[in-house]
Amino acid sequence: MEHPTLTRLKQEANHAIESFLNRYPQGAADGLYDPVHYLMGIGGKRLRAVLALSAAEAEGSEAQKAHPAALAVELFHNFTLMHDDIMDQAPKRRGNPTVHVKWDENAGILSGDAMYTLAHMALAEMDLKALPNALKVFNQTALEVCIGQQSDMDFERRLDVTVEEYMEMIRLKTSVLVAASLAMGAIAVGANEERVKLWYEAGEQLGLAFQMQDDLLDVFGGDAMGKQVGGDILSNKKTFLRLHTWEQASPELLSELKMWDDIDDRPIDKVEFVKKAMVECGADEAARSAMVDYVNRAMSALDDLNLSETNREWFDFLGGLVTQRTS
Amino acid sequence: MEHPTLTRLKQEANHAIESFLNRYPQGAADGLYDPVHYLMGIGGKRLRAVLALSAAEAEGSEAQKAHPAALAVELFHNFTLMHDDIMDQAPKRRGNPTVHVKWDENAGILSGDAMYTLAHMALAEMDLKALPNALKVFNQTALEVCIGQQSDMDFERRLDVTVEEYMEMIRLKTSVLVAASLAMGAIAVGANEERVKLWYEAGEQLGLAFQMQDDLLDVFGGDAMGKQVGGDILSNKKTFLRLHTWEQASPELLSELKMWDDIDDRPIDKVEFVKKAMVECGADEAARSAMVDYVNRAMSALDDLNLSETNREWFDFLGGLVTQRTS
Repeated sequence: MEHPTLTRLKQEANHAIESFLNRYPQGAADGLYDPVHYLMGIGGKRLRAVLALSAAEAEGSEAQKAHPAALAVELFHNFTLMHDDIMDQAPKRRGNPTVHVKWDENAGILSGDAMYTLAHMALAEMDLKALPNALKVFNQTALEVCIGQQSDMDFERRLDVTVEEYMEMIRLKTSVLVAASLAMGAIAVGANEERVKLWYEAGEQLGLAFQMQDDLLDVFGGDAMGKQVGGDILSNKKTFLRLHTWEQASPELLSELKMWDDIDDRPIDKVEFVKKAMVECGADEAARSAMVDYVNRAMSALDDLNLSETNREWFDFLGGLVTQRTS
Repeated sequence: MEHPTLTRLKQEANHAIESFLNRYPQGAADGLYDPVHYLMGIGGKRLRAVLALSAAEAEGSEAQKAHPAALAVELFHNFTLMHDDIMDQAPKRRGNPTVHVKWDENAGILSGDAMYTLAHMALAEMDLKALPNALKVFNQTALEVCIGQQSDMDFERRLDVTVEEYMEMIRLKTSVLVAASLAMGAIAVGANEERVKLWYEAGEQLGLAFQMQDDLLDVFGGDAMGKQVGGDILSNKKTFLRLHTWEQASPELLSELKMWDDIDDRPIDKVEFVKKAMVECGADEAARSAMVDYVNRAMSALDDLNLSETNREWFDFLGGLVTQRTS
């Protein structure tokens, strides 16, 4: 069962998205908007839009006033997915063919550019009083997301990535947009600078916690659910768990781990070995403890915001989603 | 000899660009900005920036106030080149390797996205009074440029493109940004709605005239200069001249023209035949006459702006550049 606030705000976000995109219909502009409709139509949690609306309500205002912010962050997020999927040559997104597979790379590039522009057009409908600040946060965030993606691609080529660098990459690639979603929702309804900062802090820390949980679930999460685990291990992905393990491993263990990097034909043995090494090196414990720290920092920012009971309960639920999710 | 105003404003634009990009230096952000510095460093007329500064001065203000507008349109223009060059698989830009050739496609996509973001960051530094209007023009223009590029790519696949459709594509792909450059320069210094509209009109018509001249020069322009001509003819490019000719040709001539489309090994004969057909069908005359119409409409908008003599002389010079240029 979904939380009723989640159901309500997700529906509100979806209505706002639908009514905005209706102005740029399928088939128009020689099909420029078709990939936009497609990507927005194959699902997605609308998390960023929901966060923007949530912050607006928690500030004691109508969520309606935060529609431009919600649309901007959600369209921007999906634009980055469209371009990232090209760069990562990803075949699937939300269980469906990616845009560059269903159409071609040019469509992915150009409709992505159009989608980024639509995000700005949505944002520009914000109250003029709030717009300059919202723009500042949005533009800074957009640049940081690009920097994060650049680091992510660089890390694939590098062998000396540190845990610290990894966390900074994650912060830029993922967390700042979660943070901006809350901050821009609050800005939209006139929150003061100090409160906007607290919203930003809460979102940033929640985003980092979410990523920690993501890394953990891929290795340790699936057993109970019967899901396949170890995808990150099999692809030698430089996650928190791997980087921590490589930093902590004895020279002997490290050389064994390096050997397994090149082995593709024994997936079950590889996952088992690397998983055991991670536990030995305390990577899972370190990740769980980091995750708890991030959630605590988010909660502390929320404390400082002095929300009403109903609103605080809702954000506690959102925080709980991160730490308790199993997939 | 360059016009002294051109020299001065181009220099001012280049200084503004340089000082803005210094905040995002080469090597920073894992090299994300390197392609931006590269593309801005291999030349370019800075026409759009110069136009933004020109409109600001013609409105009786310091060009300085239009720096955010000038930076936004110039960075946006170069961002579109970076992405278009990927889509068109262009090997060269301004005589140098394109970004996706010098780096790779991913660098072109991501640094392009960052460059678009930088354009917005520059724009956001405009006076808050002027910012909302400038944003509206900028966002609408950005979307139209995407639509124009989409049409341009579609036209390559289509055989039934009309002259009218071609002119609309050109308007979207090229002219609206020239128009926005003037309009945003005027908005930056507080011009009223009516004057902004006239600036936009002047730029739009000048942009269309420029494209007409471009099409003409490629076929009829080079002889005197000893330059190779006919590139558009050899690549069967759907220009005004070609579309007009195909619309006007007799059935016999049309079938001959279609035959030449498939001939690649007789370039001199092909250019000669198609050029003759264009003249017979009055395409060059139609293009020249259209160009004159566009320039006249631009001049009429400038008339309505009642510029000072010095300023009008400078815009007359810009108009003359279009109609009198030989390369």
